[in-house]
Amino acid sequence: MTPDGFPVVGIVGGGQLARMMVQAAIPLGIGVRVLAERADDSAARVTPEVDLGSPDDPDALRAFAATCDVLTLDHELVNLDALEAIAAEGSVVRPGAETLAYAKDKLHQRTRFAAAGLPVPEFAPVVDAGTIEAFAARLGWPVVAKAQRGGYDGRGVWVLDGPAEARDLVEESAGRGVSLLVEEFVPIQQELAVLVARRPGGECVTYPVVETVQRDGICHEVLAPAPVSEAVAEEAMRIGQRIGELTQAVGIVATELFWTEDGRVLVNEIATRPHNSGHFSIQGAATSQFENHLRAVLDWPLGPVDLLAPAVVMANLLGEDAESLAPRLATTLADEPGVYPYLYGKQTRPGRKVGHVNALGHDLEETRVRAARAAASLVGRQHVSVPGGAD
Amino acid sequence: MTPDGFPVVGIVGGGQLARMMVQAAIPLGIGVRVLAERADDSAARVTPEVDLGSPDDPDALRAFAATCDVLTLDHELVNLDALEAIAAEGSVVRPGAETLAYAKDKLHQRTRFAAAGLPVPEFAPVVDAGTIEAFAARLGWPVVAKAQRGGYDGRGVWVLDGPAEARDLVEESAGRGVSLLVEEFVPIQQELAVLVARRPGGECVTYPVVETVQRDGICHEVLAPAPVSEAVAEEAMRIGQRIGELTQAVGIVATELFWTEDGRVLVNEIATRPHNSGHFSIQGAATSQFENHLRAVLDWPLGPVDLLAPAVVMANLLGEDAESLAPRLATTLADEPGVYPYLYGKQTRPGRKVGHVNALGHDLEETRVRAARAAASLVGRQHVSVPGGAD
Repeated sequence: MTPDGFPVVGIVGGGQLARMMVQAAIPLGIGVRVLAERADDSAARVTPEVDLGSPDDPDALRAFAATCDVLTLDHELVNLDALEAIAAEGSVVRPGAETLAYAKDKLHQRTRFAAAGLPVPEFAPVVDAGTIEAFAARLGWPVVAKAQRGGYDGRGVWVLDGPAEARDLVEESAGRGVSLLVEEFVPIQQELAVLVARRPGGECVTYPVVETVQRDGICHEVLAPAPVSEAVAEEAMRIGQRIGELTQAVGIVATELFWTEDGRVLVNEIATRPHNSGHFSIQGAATSQFENHLRAVLDWPLGPVDLLAPAVVMANLLGEDAESLAPRLATTLADEPGVYPYLYGKQTRPGRKVGHVNALGHDLEETRVRAARAAASLVGRQHVSVPGGAD
Repeated sequence: MTPDGFPVVGIVGGGQLARMMVQAAIPLGIGVRVLAERADDSAARVTPEVDLGSPDDPDALRAFAATCDVLTLDHELVNLDALEAIAAEGSVVRPGAETLAYAKDKLHQRTRFAAAGLPVPEFAPVVDAGTIEAFAARLGWPVVAKAQRGGYDGRGVWVLDGPAEARDLVEESAGRGVSLLVEEFVPIQQELAVLVARRPGGECVTYPVVETVQRDGICHEVLAPAPVSEAVAEEAMRIGQRIGELTQAVGIVATELFWTEDGRVLVNEIATRPHNSGHFSIQGAATSQFENHLRAVLDWPLGPVDLLAPAVVMANLLGEDAESLAPRLATTLADEPGVYPYLYGKQTRPGRKVGHVNALGHDLEETRVRAARAAASLVGRQHVSVPGGAD
């Protein structure tokens, strides 16, 4: 408890999601503590109560949990056994290890989702290269191989065009101790995402479905609402809510979806925490995903999630060089008034996600161009790569 | 500079204005340091880099200034001589001592404003009780007496009905070493406020004029936009901008105004920092007063200040008792979804300003009722005192 009687939420991990939770906690008076690996982690830089330690270290987790009323997470790369043990000892861990297992282990997730009748791509666990060849014999090349655990932002995902590539990957993965699964290659029209905020008793709110625009497996833009038919949006929301129930999620559960060329809505990935696809909600929705995550893990009433403008666009800031963003920020604020930058307090380097910008507007394409222009200006990129976005 | 090359703003004072600046600094990557009197001050509780010390102590101010790129203020109750000396030694202090003198010394302010042709109530410095009697003989009783320095939230202001009261006040004030001025008692229709954010070179933005609803000299509600004619609003904005220039303000300068029964717009008070009358801007305007204050003191481009809804209402949370707000917050979030509470992290006690709520809507009276209901619910007050606000 804080001195004025508010609960203390402990966030395991000090990344940008923790930073945005820290910021969302301030107006609500919620106490926050962060378990960070380094003192200059994104969240550790902006909040006073920081423990330094690894989320994989059971002792660090246990000591941290003892100082908090509720434990939640910035990322899934934590020691689930330790979390389960801590919960068994009486700590409140939200989401719990049962939920986190779905996000951490893709085979577990696919198996359970398929068993529950949720639409997932066809998949199989990889025993050896023969598994992949047999799978491809049935569904055709290419196929998609995925690391069972630990991949994100396009890492741990491979498109395989034939048996030779399959054999190389299986051999290399075995050498690194990485288990694989194989999935059908799904030609897609769009990638979508849906965020659900869910309380322990099951009460939930569902954010409007968004389109996530990916390049090389990395999300570059999020468009809210997704430019899809109402039927597709409703199907996506239904799947997101069903996944919330099935995984017994508490807090935000984000479901990334494929809308395929043959008209199916399929589950791609899930994250059982605030997610990049929900950053639009900071200025774009009546309650941000970070505030609703905190409310949910505290079992407080959830806030409304209506969009605050007809079009909301988020563009990620992916570093182009190692220059400070500070001088570029002043330029961008002058050139693109009314766009909302969010910087994560990280050293810039090529390809690193160092922030995002949100833009609100009446017209999707116009809003998209403003967000993309501001993002390009902030990272020092000449080329603005959205339709109509030539600079 | 922060490790990633951003400037560090030092905030003198650890109150709620500093807390809200701290929160606004996070997305922009701006470094923040706070000079607070106590470790549990509102802002000190939510930011890692805090120096403990008095804003009246020249050594504490100087040591603090040495760790920051720009110094700014949470309140005017600072040692102006020390600030001037620090500025003379090369520190950047925004606003500067010249500007702060206007907010700190009411006689200085009235004299300079009157000389510049700004509309102020008639006033005179008080030498003795005879000054007040002579003033009243000319303008009639009652008259208003004010402490020249240090008053706020209705403190340091007295309405005097006759010579006996004047003599008592003058005697008592002399005993406490308090200098007074006397002003005409102005029958008013409404109290208004206008906020200007101003950069060192004079570039400024002006927020929409608001009505401040006062009871017993304390602001209870702020209504944006003020329900006044365009002519009155324009006059108020013109005055606010002129005061920005005259005082050479940098950052937010808030001007509180009387709209009198005889149709004049008169300057009441000014504050040369973010102000309670601008809290509506956190959710209600495209850029909050706290973000624009930071941008202005860094000489960065200012953000747009358009209202984001036809009606924006702020209601202050004035403590009714000494209970924690935490359980009431959960209730309020359930009963009044879509209202934005901002708690200052202070122990509640009767009459203490412990937070505010913002509400956005289409209709002023409906929005006002929602804000008032949420505020009453948070502080545990049964009676909701706005027109139409019976619960």
